[in-house]
Amino acid sequence: VDPIRLAGERLLLLDQTLLPGKERWIEIRDVAAMIEAIASLRIRGAPAIGIAAGLALALEAKASTDPAHVLLARLDAAAARIKAARPTAVNLAWAVDRVLAAAGRAGKDSGAGDVREAVRAEALAIWEEDRGASRAMAEHGAAFFPTESRFLTHCNTGGLATGGGGTALGVLLELRRRGRDLRVWATETRPLLQGARLTVLELQEAGIPVRLLVDGAAAFAIRTERIEAVVVGADRIAANGDVANKVGSLGLALGARDAGIPFVVVAPTSSVDPDCPSGEDIPIEERDPVEVTSVAGRPTAPGGTAAYNPAFDVTPARLVTAIITEAGLWRPRVVGGRPIEGGSGHR
Amino acid sequence: VDPIRLAGERLLLLDQTLLPGKERWIEIRDVAAMIEAIASLRIRGAPAIGIAAGLALALEAKASTDPAHVLLARLDAAAARIKAARPTAVNLAWAVDRVLAAAGRAGKDSGAGDVREAVRAEALAIWEEDRGASRAMAEHGAAFFPTESRFLTHCNTGGLATGGGGTALGVLLELRRRGRDLRVWATETRPLLQGARLTVLELQEAGIPVRLLVDGAAAFAIRTERIEAVVVGADRIAANGDVANKVGSLGLALGARDAGIPFVVVAPTSSVDPDCPSGEDIPIEERDPVEVTSVAGRPTAPGGTAAYNPAFDVTPARLVTAIITEAGLWRPRVVGGRPIEGGSGHR
Repeated sequence: VDPIRLAGERLLLLDQTLLPGKERWIEIRDVAAMIEAIASLRIRGAPAIGIAAGLALALEAKASTDPAHVLLARLDAAAARIKAARPTAVNLAWAVDRVLAAAGRAGKDSGAGDVREAVRAEALAIWEEDRGASRAMAEHGAAFFPTESRFLTHCNTGGLATGGGGTALGVLLELRRRGRDLRVWATETRPLLQGARLTVLELQEAGIPVRLLVDGAAAFAIRTERIEAVVVGADRIAANGDVANKVGSLGLALGARDAGIPFVVVAPTSSVDPDCPSGEDIPIEERDPVEVTSVAGRPTAPGGTAAYNPAFDVTPARLVTAIITEAGLWRPRVVGGRPIEGGSGHR
Repeated sequence: VDPIRLAGERLLLLDQTLLPGKERWIEIRDVAAMIEAIASLRIRGAPAIGIAAGLALALEAKASTDPAHVLLARLDAAAARIKAARPTAVNLAWAVDRVLAAAGRAGKDSGAGDVREAVRAEALAIWEEDRGASRAMAEHGAAFFPTESRFLTHCNTGGLATGGGGTALGVLLELRRRGRDLRVWATETRPLLQGARLTVLELQEAGIPVRLLVDGAAAFAIRTERIEAVVVGADRIAANGDVANKVGSLGLALGARDAGIPFVVVAPTSSVDPDCPSGEDIPIEERDPVEVTSVAGRPTAPGGTAAYNPAFDVTPARLVTAIITEAGLWRPRVVGGRPIEGGSGHR
């Protein structure tokens, strides 16, 4: 399932808020529409919203008939708006900055036409590279789990969340392709139920037996269901190895540590933020309380209920067994407890 | 809020599955109706279903015109059916056994009328004692927290779950009565949302500021919201101090330990099972998968999704800071890792 499609010159997104009930594709015509789609999670998943952000800038460039210096200013302004759509996944800012840099290089010596072409080419390159990253993560991840067959995963990290086959879920799909007799436990992932709605769908389509559980049951399930590893994605990895990911990940990491099983993060290096020394520096998006006080539009709590609704949490590096990227195992750039320049396996 | 009412000879239950939307009282006329109400969680909470079970036997006795020995056999048969309604909370079996024992004592020397009266008196005594236990737990619990004002709680453990003011929530209400400037964070408690539906309601009615969160956010909230203690109830406490409670409690205990704050269980001694050596011996109820694959009757996952739905989990004694009962702090009856006879603060 590829959540983004180019149909000739038309850019289409699968509206993931309607899955699994409805498969509706929406056409994105401008930056404002893409920002709305990202903020409302019609498109979601750190790698996928990076791709979407790049394509949004390509739409902005295509719509412009301005001379190069005006076009570059327009792209700058659009970039700021896109980055503000969701603050935690660094892939969004990373992709926007990459496309802006390509535009700036083209704009130095050439006209607006070349800038437009450079923006389009860079956006498509980010997409294509992410497809390749998915393949490489799947290979590295499969090698990391030579015998394990009972996995617990959280949120959705498959084809719907990336430009390719996925991050954590991509590893499980690869193990299945290699003939592993897999069993997967998927947390429903409140408040927006990406596990129940999307991960179950992707696993069912791959023919992998899956059991759904409420998020609160995960720590117990790790023991009673004899889970062998927890695998999740990431929205931002700090230089010291702290991992921001879908809220609930920290609890899974604690459950894994207590049970003595690995807690493994699978993410492209575009999710690593070398400018973020630790998890405390990662901005955590707080979303509308109504996501917590209701389910699918139906109120679940008394009127006027206040809610705490962080979309992500931070798992400290000490609880993370391994971070698997397209470049292999990524190691935090830390010496003596402090992040250093350089590090391994990182852009 | 008292979830059970006697109106003359009529026994009424507040149907908690409809809260907070509707306040509907249902009349319970026989054992079958009470079993249905317990199994479907119209009445829930370990102490409350103990009370309900005792009252169910009183209904059975009242309906009988049999001689004493036939009545006793009828009560035995009803007791077995009531105990099977929900297997984890030991209060159910404990109350049933107490009422049966009272009936047996009366039946030895007297006629059916005395048996009926003994059954009714014992059922009412259990109810009255639980009211007193709530008061005593609130006192002991308030003393246990001399300064704390930021608490996280799980599921519902207030007046709706007991014959009195509650267990864990009763302690918080008592702190408020004593003038503590409380802030409470309540987990929604999937799958059946007792936190969102019931705990928020009870806290709002007491004028205590409460923020609702999804279960997966609890471990992160403990850190970011600077929670000072986690307080929960219990459905069964094994002799070694392992605690079965609403699923999700284990994850909260792990979060509390990692953050270095207390994880405190508040429960009457009727929740202690001296015949259960450890948590591994506690039967954990698995409920209908549809509770996980839907919310309030609406499907949330693709058709045909399998689910793992334990209603409770087990928190090992090593993660429990304290168990507060009506008799004060309860200590596991353990020496050298093995449960022993005797112990403290226990019937």
